[in-house]
Amino acid sequence: MSARATYTPETLLEVAVAVFNERGYDGTSMEHLSQAAGISKSSIYHHVRSKEELLRRAVSHALDGLAAVLEEPGARQGRAIDRLEYVTRRTTAVLMRRLPYVTLLLRVRGNTDTERWALARRREFDQRVAALLRQAAAEGDLRPEVDVRLAARLLFGMINSVAEWYRPPSEEDQDALGVVDEAVVDAVVSTAFAGLRLHR
Amino acid sequence: MSARATYTPETLLEVAVAVFNERGYDGTSMEHLSQAAGISKSSIYHHVRSKEELLRRAVSHALDGLAAVLEEPGARQGRAIDRLEYVTRRTTAVLMRRLPYVTLLLRVRGNTDTERWALARRREFDQRVAALLRQAAAEGDLRPEVDVRLAARLLFGMINSVAEWYRPPSEEDQDALGVVDEAVVDAVVSTAFAGLRLHR
Repeated sequence: MSARATYTPETLLEVAVAVFNERGYDGTSMEHLSQAAGISKSSIYHHVRSKEELLRRAVSHALDGLAAVLEEPGARQGRAIDRLEYVTRRTTAVLMRRLPYVTLLLRVRGNTDTERWALARRREFDQRVAALLRQAAAEGDLRPEVDVRLAARLLFGMINSVAEWYRPPSEEDQDALGVVDEAVVDAVVSTAFAGLRLHR
Repeated sequence: MSARATYTPETLLEVAVAVFNERGYDGTSMEHLSQAAGISKSSIYHHVRSKEELLRRAVSHALDGLAAVLEEPGARQGRAIDRLEYVTRRTTAVLMRRLPYVTLLLRVRGNTDTERWALARRREFDQRVAALLRQAAAEGDLRPEVDVRLAARLLFGMINSVAEWYRPPSEEDQDALGVVDEAVVDAVVSTAFAGLRLHR
């Protein structure tokens, strides 16, 4: 990423997330961030108190995007199976739109307070989705042989795996509305909910 | 892992894989391996020429296990959709049986010759499975809206995600036959092939 004349907290965050994803959070020093941003360390400290604050802001951007999905009408109204499908669709979309932030979140392992806080928030999200799965089972809309606990993990596994290979059309559009590749969203939803096999 | 009186190439490999997964391959030195194994560096060099040789042996153990699946009768006979389901089942089982080795393989990023070689072999495996998906589509056994390229990625994404949370019953049983959790295998196969939703 090239140096910029002026930095805002947002553009600095963007650079930091890219460096964290490239070098790993533990392997990144303020010196690395300073070099990547093309500004002095003291200029960085003008915006943030610490590397950990940058991590917290970055994973918050991912977590806030995911949490907001659960407040949307499609996640709150209707049968649980349809709400689950809606959440799957929107979670995949948020992952693609906030790709570097969600990628960073998915790599958090719990070595610092901020990481443990992020893991706790992620677990809370997972549990709310798992509750939807249980409710869908109770409403008779899941195939009876589905193990709800395993299904929740596999559903997230499939959604999160999109971060491994999806690359947005251009860096500038990363967080813009409307750039989500609907084919990817459709593929996740149809694979997880209808399965690949035509005849059973 | 505690020090042992005598080391074989296999037990040394087991220790090395655990350390690579813990510290990252790039972050592991021969000194780290010596400490973890409780033997001198010169004793390690008695078994292997380099850290990279340990990596090559470790990812080979994963890759050989996966490649062997494609040679089994269930992967070679019958309709493509059934062979694909068989390969999904067996690949998930190999992942669980050789968990630390496959985990290491999944983290390989291509920084060394050995890593690039491992990525090429992994890609070859992926392509053979993608070919099965294409053939299943040609035989009319995939739902017509399935995008074969995306479905292949999502199927692997789901299978590989098992490595994120699956923990074998005990360390000693890790590579033994018969310890595979069939419930996990069944959940992967039924989610990917039949989908979660009962009524469409």
